Amino acid sequence: MKKIVVIGATGTLGRAVSAELKARHEVIEVGATRGQYQVDSTDPASVERLFRELGKVDGVVTTIGKVHFGPLPQMSIEQFWVGLRDKLMGQINVVLAGQNYVNDGGSFTLTSGILADEPIREGANATTVNLALEGFVRGAAIELPRGIRINVVSPTVLSESMEGYAPYFRGFEPVTAQRAAQAYLRSVEGAQTGRVYRVGD
Amino acid sequence: MKKIVVIGATGTLGRAVSAELKARHEVIEVGATRGQYQVDSTDPASVERLFRELGKVDGVVTTIGKVHFGPLPQMSIEQFWVGLRDKLMGQINVVLAGQNYVNDGGSFTLTSGILADEPIREGANATTVNLALEGFVRGAAIELPRGIRINVVSPTVLSESMEGYAPYFRGFEPVTAQRAAQAYLRSVEGAQTGRVYRVGD
Ligand SMILES: NC(=O)c1ccc[n+]([C@@H]2O[C@H](COP(=O)([O-])OP(=O)(O)OC[C@H]3O[C@@H](n4cnc5c(N)ncnc54)[C@H](OP(=O)(O)O)[C@@H]3O)[C@@H](O)[C@H]2O)c1
Ligand SMILES: NC(=O)c1ccc[n+]([C@@H]2O[C@H](COP(=O)([O-])OP(=O)(O)OC[C@H]3O[C@@H](n4cnc5c(N)ncnc54)[C@H](OP(=O)(O)O)[C@@H]3O)[C@@H](O)[C@H]2O)c1
Repeated sequence: MKKIVVIGATGTLGRAVSAELKARHEVIEVGATRGQYQVDSTDPASVERLFRELGKVDGVVTTIGKVHFGPLPQMSIEQFWVGLRDKLMGQINVVLAGQNYVNDGGSFTLTSGILADEPIREGANATTVNLALEGFVRGAAIELPRGIRINVVSPTVLSESMEGYAPYFRGFEPVTAQRAAQAYLRSVEGAQTGRVYRVGD
Repeated sequence: MKKIVVIGATGTLGRAVSAELKARHEVIEVGATRGQYQVDSTDPASVERLFRELGKVDGVVTTIGKVHFGPLPQMSIEQFWVGLRDKLMGQINVVLAGQNYVNDGGSFTLTSGILADEPIREGANATTVNLALEGFVRGAAIELPRGIRINVVSPTVLSESMEGYAPYFRGFEPVTAQRAAQAYLRSVEGAQTGRVYRVGD
């Protein structure tokens, strides 16, 4: 049994990831406004405080991150920064602070998404941020100390989110959050590092 | 003959790109401190000012961008921001502002680098930023208006830079800046969009 903190555990994807992990592990559920603990992952001091409170853990999973959706010809630079600050640096802040709190041989598992591979209209910010996260994992995997691993899961659109997202994702075959959650188990319980686990499409 | 602005034209890579383009085109050479025009690409107002001064162009090439090199276990969040602000947003600022100044059927050509594909020690910031740029180009290619194309060139280490960089790049076969410059010609004079042109390795 490992001690795993799931940041974003109260969200659509995070709820399913937590539920699957709980079958075999102690799971600490963290949200922004809900959950057992709260953190603002865009604020490095808040992230540091969370890890100090939690102490050592065996795994950190992040299922968080906002990006800006909108047409590129009208996209402002400020709008473009949204995804960099939130989905990208929100998760990188967790790794930079959390590496000191993860036990030897522990793991990080971040969240990217299908738009890394499949650009859509209004999605340039998402595609940028998702590939940046995959780049971060590729770079960090060879540098994390003490056998700590890092992977990223890239799910396609979730069935649970199709109601709002359908117009953006015509022809994409959604997967359930429960199915996407399996990839997080492969990352947390497996032995690979520097991997992108793609789910669907 | 096209009117091409090269931002970073005074640098190691940019000098070679400008020289090759000049064989057939009008080239406007822009630097931070040198060149015919100056810009600070990290400052959106400065980028806007440059394009207003230059007027309409057929192509924009960027060969700019600083990232932070340093070990991940000691990397501060502030250090990580360096590459996002400079190499990543420096080039994205140019596209977001420049799209209004590029003629129908014109092009953008950005610069990534081998560390996108080949992580090295102390290179997590570079790998993140380079893949982010490749993501941006993938996303932007399907959204730019009026047949404007966008590609990115990813060169391996340049022979001209090996003196300083060699310890990071053992076993990498360098290419000359003049050879790397050919990929910029393929992007500017070719017809593809959304492409990563890798040079070397
Ligand atoms: N849904 C999809 O179809 C889909 C598909 C592929 C990839 N993804 C990616 O998966 C991730 C999660 O998506 P989701 O649909 O599950 O989102 P969601 O339902 O909106 O959940 C977001 C989660 O993040 C937490 N959160 C929000 N802001 C935070 C902050 N500043 N610091 C820390 N936690 C914060 C929320 O906490 P509270 O609940 O406490 O506010 C919640 O737990 C995103 O990166 C998304 O791009 C989603
Ligand atoms: N060198 C290599 O081996 C290599 C290999 C692969 C990829 N790359 C990438 O290629 C790009 C250029 O590298 P390089 O070696 O040619 O660099 P460099 O010789 O240092 O040249 C940098 C260029 O960028 C300009 N510049 C600096 N800060 C700027 C700013 N804030 N706004 C606008 N322009 C700015 C400089 O202008 P001034 O001269 O006027 O100051 C100069 O023209 C970088 O993204 C690098 O990662 C380089």
